This record gives sequence, structure tokens and C-alpha cells, in this order.
Amino acid sequence: GSPTVKKPRTELSYGARADLAETPPVAARLLRLMEEKRSNLCVSADVTASAELLQLAEALGPLICVLKTHVDILQDFSPSVTDALGQLALKHRFLIFEDRKFADIGNTVKQQYEGGQYRISSWSHIINAHAVPGPGVVKGLSAVGRPLDRGCLLIAQMSSVGSLATGDYTESVVRMAEEYSDFVFGFICGGKISSKPQFVHMTPGVQMHPGGDDLGQQYSTPCEVIGRKGSDVIIVGRGILAASDRLKAAEDYRKAGWEAYLNRLSSPCE
Amino acid sequence: GSPTVKKPRTELSYGARADLAETPPVAARLLRLMEEKRSNLCVSADVTASAELLQLAEALGPLICVLKTHVDILQDFSPSVTDALGQLALKHRFLIFEDRKFADIGNTVKQQYEGGQYRISSWSHIINAHAVPGPGVVKGLSAVGRPLDRGCLLIAQMSSVGSLATGDYTESVVRMAEEYSDFVFGFICGGKISSKPQFVHMTPGVQMHPGGDDLGQQYSTPCEVIGRKGSDVIIVGRGILAASDRLKAAEDYRKAGWEAYLNRLSSPCE
Repeated sequence: GSPTVKKPRTELSYGARADLAETPPVAARLLRLMEEKRSNLCVSADVTASAELLQLAEALGPLICVLKTHVDILQDFSPSVTDALGQLALKHRFLIFEDRKFADIGNTVKQQYEGGQYRISSWSHIINAHAVPGPGVVKGLSAVGRPLDRGCLLIAQMSSVGSLATGDYTESVVRMAEEYSDFVFGFICGGKISSKPQFVHMTPGVQMHPGGDDLGQQYSTPCEVIGRKGSDVIIVGRGILAASDRLKAAEDYRKAGWEAYLNRLSSPCE
Repeated sequence: GSPTVKKPRTELSYGARADLAETPPVAARLLRLMEEKRSNLCVSADVTASAELLQLAEALGPLICVLKTHVDILQDFSPSVTDALGQLALKHRFLIFEDRKFADIGNTVKQQYEGGQYRISSWSHIINAHAVPGPGVVKGLSAVGRPLDRGCLLIAQMSSVGSLATGDYTESVVRMAEEYSDFVFGFICGGKISSKPQFVHMTPGVQMHPGGDDLGQQYSTPCEVIGRKGSDVIIVGRGILAASDRLKAAEDYRKAGWEAYLNRLSSPCE
């Protein structure tokens, strides 16, 4: 089973959480733009052509709070792509989240984050990491990312069948996040796992209709994830990318996610 | 605690294990060249310049069974580097192991393994994965790697302080490896965790003198790892790379690892 957290009697808005002293810069920036744009939608831009990635960022940018990328699946990556992404992030006010899932010892992830062909730390506002290597993974990433005001999400739960990130594992991740909260500002998770309002909960595997794929992915709806499970951000990939009208689909998800949030705010002790 | 495995009364040689019907092609190839080259040494070539990586492969190639790479920290990667590595692997008879630590859902790791700038599946004989996403990660990688006769190691334990890969987690990894043993041929681990002789155990964090770094890495000696803990392959990084004479250091590690193996063979029930 997963750890559960008692719902606080009063639910703070994204904007109010942005203003808390304990909220680190990247989380404050994110929560503020969510409030302003009325969006808790992160689009997972899993495409293999750079032009398509930039088209998505341009078209969906106004509707999203975060653009999640896998630049390591682009067939035609060049630094000009991440430069252009950065400009689109400024123009449309979203944050970029390279979903690298760092998972090595500290000395190695430092180099993977800063170096190589992708130079992730130079353009991605948010990264994530698995806690399985122990705290060294966070220390290594933090040494590179904190001076740049970057932030890290720890992967506390996964949406895939048979994930080992459950129970004690998830609890250890929450403790690690609390210990390194000057760099870790939230979680990849199925729902709310920490009651500390500075932590942002982001949930992948979201579609309008529950289901799955043939490699173990499992889907939940925006209403379940934001309303019932108390997460903060829905991460939607194929639900938008596979739609015939991606812009319309993204607007549908933005609206569904935002309404679930407003409902939660108005009836926090349901 | 970690799972422990009873020592079999007779210890099979690497060569004998290569010949077992249940040993998959990549494991057979590895075990055979270990026997022939009298080497259970894997060098971790954590360098950031391609020329240095190729120099290491050329100089240390005759002494090693596996060259472990992190091509994602190279500052000047190009496909010609992995082409040249492949030629050196043939010339000196070692296998290439890109230490990517795949750790995402199946649909994503498939694309990360095959695509992007690094096209890992096209040149790396061995890859590894974290089991935390559940079996989908192995299924996704297998869909790409098995048709190419590649093999995968699952990360069952880590050498870093506070790793969450212990106890039940490690046991789940062993079960997952057994279930997908047509593609998973062994483990990254601290010592022997499966008694099935087709599984190859590879252990990182090896140095002649125990100790650690300031980001949580912890070291064990070749004798401990191969002799007392029953692993098959020692993975040595800084112990060789930071030596003033890398060739001599590599030969010292090869000899220490091989002698520990011979001692184990001659006194299997110590």
C-alpha cells in the first residue's frame, strides 16, 4: 500500500502556496504561473522530430504550465532546439521539464546533468530522479542545479504495472525530499503523498478514459488525479498527442484539470 | 538485509557456465571471453573526451572482459566514436556496456534505447535497467534488444550509501530477471544473489582499498567481491582512471580479480 496523508482542513490555492516562505524559487514560479494561466496541465511531448516538438510548444504553450520533454528520443537534436524551446517557454510562460529520470550515483549524475550532447542543466528548469541510489543522486544533481535555480522532482510512485515504487519505498522518497527540500520541490506520484504545501505533486499516466497500453502503462482521469487523489499537476501524453485535434484535446485536459482543482478548493473536506 | 544464496557444493567455471543450454547468447559470449582472456575485469571508462575513451579502449582492451561507458557525458560525441569502439571491441574481444540505467515505462525506454543521438542499441552489447518501473521496462527494452542478441542487466543493489535497492526490492529484481531470462542475463549487485549459473553478477564500486567519495559511493576490494561475496565481474572506475599508470593499475585489478576467482573455484565450500 501507499502512504496516505490526512487532508488539511483548509486547502491552500496554488497562488497561496507560491507565497509561502518555505517554497523554493522554481516551485513558486510554477505555482504562480499555474494560478495565472489557470492551468495544471503538463504536456508530455514524446515526439522524435525537433520541428514537431517546437510546433507543440508553440501551439500548446499558452495552455500548459509545464512542457515535459525526452530530448534523448529526438532523431535530429541540436542545441538550437533547446534554445528555441527556452524562448517559447519565456513567450508562453511555461517551465521545461526534461524527464531524464536520473538514477545513478552522485558523481555520475552530475556529469550526465551538466554535460554530454544534451547539456540538460543549461535549459531544463525541472528534472527528476529516482531515489533508488540513495541521497547521493540528489546531492550530485543539486551541486549542478541549485546554483542555476533549477528544481528536482523525486519519483515516488509510477503509473506502470508492477512498479516497485510503493509502500516503504515511497515513504523513503518522501523523507529524502524533505531532507533536500532546497532542491527537491516535489514528486512524480499517483496522488498527494506529502502534506507540506511547498511540495508540488505531478502525476503521469493521465487520460480522459482509464485504460492502459501493452507495455504496462495504466491511465487515470484528471478528475481522479486532481480531485480524489489530491495531486497538483496532470501529465498527459498520448491523450493529447494521439488526438486528431491536439489543441482542442489540450484545452479539454486543461479545463478538466482546472475544474477538478476548483472543486477541490471549494470542498476540501468532502 | 539482502537475500543470501547458499553456495552450491560445486562451483562451475565461467567456461562451463557459458556452455549451459539456459545461458543466453550474450552471457555465453561474455563468460567464454572471460575464460579465454583470464579476466573478470570491467573498466568503467567515465571520461568526457572521445579521444581519451578510445585510447582507454585500445590500451586496456586486452585486459578486460567489458568496457563500461557513459556516452552521455562525452563532450564531443559523434557516431564515429561508437563505430570505433565497436571495432576495438572486436579487435580486443571485449563487450561494450552502456551504463544507461534505463528507468522509465516500456514505451519510453524503447525509444531511448533505439533512438536519439546515441542510438545505444546499435552498438552496445549490454545495457542495464532499474526494475522500479515494473516489468514493462524490460519488455520495452527486450523488444528492441533481443532481435539484436543484446542483453540486459537488472540493477538489484547499488554501491552507494542509503540505496533503496535492498531487501524486498532486491528479491523482486531477482524474480523479474528469472521471468525475463531470455533478455536479462544478470545483475548489477554487491554479490551473488541468484544461484542460477546462467546469471552473471557484476559489481561496481571496486577499489584495492575500501573507502568512498563525498557523494555517497562506497568501495569494496576485488577479493571481497569475487571471493567472499561470490560476484563474477568487478567494475573498476576511479581505481584505474585516477592511477598514474592506468595500464599497470588495470593489470593489477585483472590479476586480483582473477586470483580471487581461482581461489573460489578451488575452495567453493570454504
